[in-house]
Amino acid sequence: MSSKSKAKTENWTWITGGVAAARGFYAAGVQAGVKYRDKYDVAVILSEVPAQAAGVFTRSLVKAHPVLLSQQRVQSGRAQAVVMNSGNANACVGAAGDKAASEMTAKTAACLKLEAEDVLVASTGVIGVEMPLPTVLNGIEAATAEVDKMRQSVREKGSKGGATGDYESIYDNAHKAALAIMTTDTTVKEFACELECESGVIRLGAMAKGSGMIHPNMGTMLGLLTTDAGVPAAKLQGLLQEAVDESFNMVTVDGDTSTNDCVLFLANGESGIEPVGADWDNFKEMVYALMIKLAQEIARDGEGASKFLEVRVTGAKTKEDARKLAKSVCGSSLVKTAVFGEDPNWGRILAAMGYAGADFDPAEADIYLGQVQVAKGGRGVDFPYEQAKQVLAQKDIVIEARLNGGSAAATAWGCDLTYEYVKINGSYTT
Amino acid sequence: MSSKSKAKTENWTWITGGVAAARGFYAAGVQAGVKYRDKYDVAVILSEVPAQAAGVFTRSLVKAHPVLLSQQRVQSGRAQAVVMNSGNANACVGAAGDKAASEMTAKTAACLKLEAEDVLVASTGVIGVEMPLPTVLNGIEAATAEVDKMRQSVREKGSKGGATGDYESIYDNAHKAALAIMTTDTTVKEFACELECESGVIRLGAMAKGSGMIHPNMGTMLGLLTTDAGVPAAKLQGLLQEAVDESFNMVTVDGDTSTNDCVLFLANGESGIEPVGADWDNFKEMVYALMIKLAQEIARDGEGASKFLEVRVTGAKTKEDARKLAKSVCGSSLVKTAVFGEDPNWGRILAAMGYAGADFDPAEADIYLGQVQVAKGGRGVDFPYEQAKQVLAQKDIVIEARLNGGSAAATAWGCDLTYEYVKINGSYTT
Repeated sequence: MSSKSKAKTENWTWITGGVAAARGFYAAGVQAGVKYRDKYDVAVILSEVPAQAAGVFTRSLVKAHPVLLSQQRVQSGRAQAVVMNSGNANACVGAAGDKAASEMTAKTAACLKLEAEDVLVASTGVIGVEMPLPTVLNGIEAATAEVDKMRQSVREKGSKGGATGDYESIYDNAHKAALAIMTTDTTVKEFACELECESGVIRLGAMAKGSGMIHPNMGTMLGLLTTDAGVPAAKLQGLLQEAVDESFNMVTVDGDTSTNDCVLFLANGESGIEPVGADWDNFKEMVYALMIKLAQEIARDGEGASKFLEVRVTGAKTKEDARKLAKSVCGSSLVKTAVFGEDPNWGRILAAMGYAGADFDPAEADIYLGQVQVAKGGRGVDFPYEQAKQVLAQKDIVIEARLNGGSAAATAWGCDLTYEYVKINGSYTT
Repeated sequence: MSSKSKAKTENWTWITGGVAAARGFYAAGVQAGVKYRDKYDVAVILSEVPAQAAGVFTRSLVKAHPVLLSQQRVQSGRAQAVVMNSGNANACVGAAGDKAASEMTAKTAACLKLEAEDVLVASTGVIGVEMPLPTVLNGIEAATAEVDKMRQSVREKGSKGGATGDYESIYDNAHKAALAIMTTDTTVKEFACELECESGVIRLGAMAKGSGMIHPNMGTMLGLLTTDAGVPAAKLQGLLQEAVDESFNMVTVDGDTSTNDCVLFLANGESGIEPVGADWDNFKEMVYALMIKLAQEIARDGEGASKFLEVRVTGAKTKEDARKLAKSVCGSSLVKTAVFGEDPNWGRILAAMGYAGADFDPAEADIYLGQVQVAKGGRGVDFPYEQAKQVLAQKDIVIEARLNGGSAAATAWGCDLTYEYVKINGSYTT
């Protein structure tokens, strides 16, 4: 992907503004006190006009209540606002959970004068504990008031979102929304970019939370993308699913999938441009690059992680094989502890490929740690040990497996397995 | 399984003698110096007469050279000796590895006056490093000399293996064979039992190695079972496969599957009894119980493990669902760290079930920590927190999920994820 994104940055550039970078989007975050004081924990994101909507949700059989509600609503292909919170996952609490998710959207809709059906919801935090509903509803009231203020101000001044006008305060508020979905994340994850098209500029913004490692209760990943491009819901859904498979789904930390994982994408068309042809290709690349960036940040920010791990598989027979192999290596506890210990123990890499459930010929596999080839044709080579140790002494580590059996490739991201991981996840008390 | 095995111990009893407990089997272990001095590391096991043979091997695409050779030979359904070593896995070293595996069996055959085709081989240890062949062949010479001495002595005195005669030294030597396959195991794993049949006694012995956790390079599991029952190879193979699925395959430590995993079963018929009807049922139960005992010992002996974890799933729709669910919970890093931290964080259990890829209804699932019910119908109950903490403060912990959706059940064994695990696997140097 790196060569691709390099090529395409000729067409698009990184900008500021997060989820409010695209025209007609407003976002706010407030400190409602869902679980902690002095922590942003409720966010509301609004589009000036109803947007085309897409969503990708956890494949776990055990789905949180907001996941069930949003999954159903997004089928309409339309949404105008999203309400999100941290501090409570609203999962595994029965009928009270369905009610809480539903009331969160109803409150958001009432405050913003929308239909509840046009509001999506996502939560992250402790599971199995009932949502403190009055607290959250108060937070929603405060957040929607902020959002409404921006909307009024922009309407009066005739500017839209980050395009013109009060964009500094708009961007500040978007930043607070990004803060509000963090759990044990140590970095805020918000990015935005814009693409020069034939007939103007398209903007794309995003925020995400993810403990690549694991939050006290769950390693939930939440993501929200906003764009002012005009994209029909079905096309948006296809793009989101594809891009999730290449980004969020390639973050492997400990194999545990959350009850709350959810990525939403709203396209409100406020740029007046519906990208087609080369513009579409560029837009697509920009979406991929943005989501891969978020995925990498999530892996990098793993709790307890001391190193960032990128596993590239090339020369696979199929894309599916390449993905399985990259994720298997990236998720292997043995590989992860070896990376932590800076031990160039390549046998563990090949072994993790062996049980990945993917089709490849081990006798054709070449393995590299950084630029150092450690195995050729499935067997060890007499590699420069000190040089390999040096690769592993870095903070960012690339493992590459060249399978020489086809042309499919995939990349997975993760981190090492450290004492700190055990500490964080062993010492948490419900 | 515990209720089953309790019922059947009326028919069979635990005895001593390990793999030499059954009539007509001899075993020896020597210190050849494959990797360490003063460590038993080469073992040879001989049957007085050609035995019916069965084997179950790693499903990894990356198979060690001895696995490839033994897998091919066991197809004949016949074997008379097994040579095993620790200190070197003989994996991923190309043609030299095939040659080493083959020469190990040829040497064993020559020393014992057998055909090489009747000798099986299994190795465990470092992968990607060539076997120090002269060292191993010297070890085989010494081990076969011991075995031959016992065979001669028994022949002169007219006794067979552990049945009569020199059984103390025979048992001592079998114990050395069990020592010779250990890597970072902290306990020797050998068991034996005998069954009173209509027409006499059948004996069954076994040894295994397994770091439920992980050896420096791989968490290889090796197992060897010997019996003096007469069982046709095809029937033996069926029994072994079934029993492996309920025992070794239910040990979940970190999801990493070895290049060298291998369980072999020899039945030499020296008891003169071919169990059928009730005798077969009892024999089968005895084989299951023995293998489950070995599997539990492997999980319990995990490197770095501070607690033994048993996960029972009942009320599943299918056996396959039950197995997937039990293994998913037992293998979840989040559950394992919670157990280490003695944190009754049941949401992690339900979450691990959610992504197991098994069919069940979360809304019907009840979860227990020991005797304490923590969730009912997929949602938390107001459980006695201190009592749940006490369950987790024990050394042996049982987690039970009752799915109320069918009658299939499965049990998985594992251990907690500790600082020590990270230390052991991070600080090893190739």
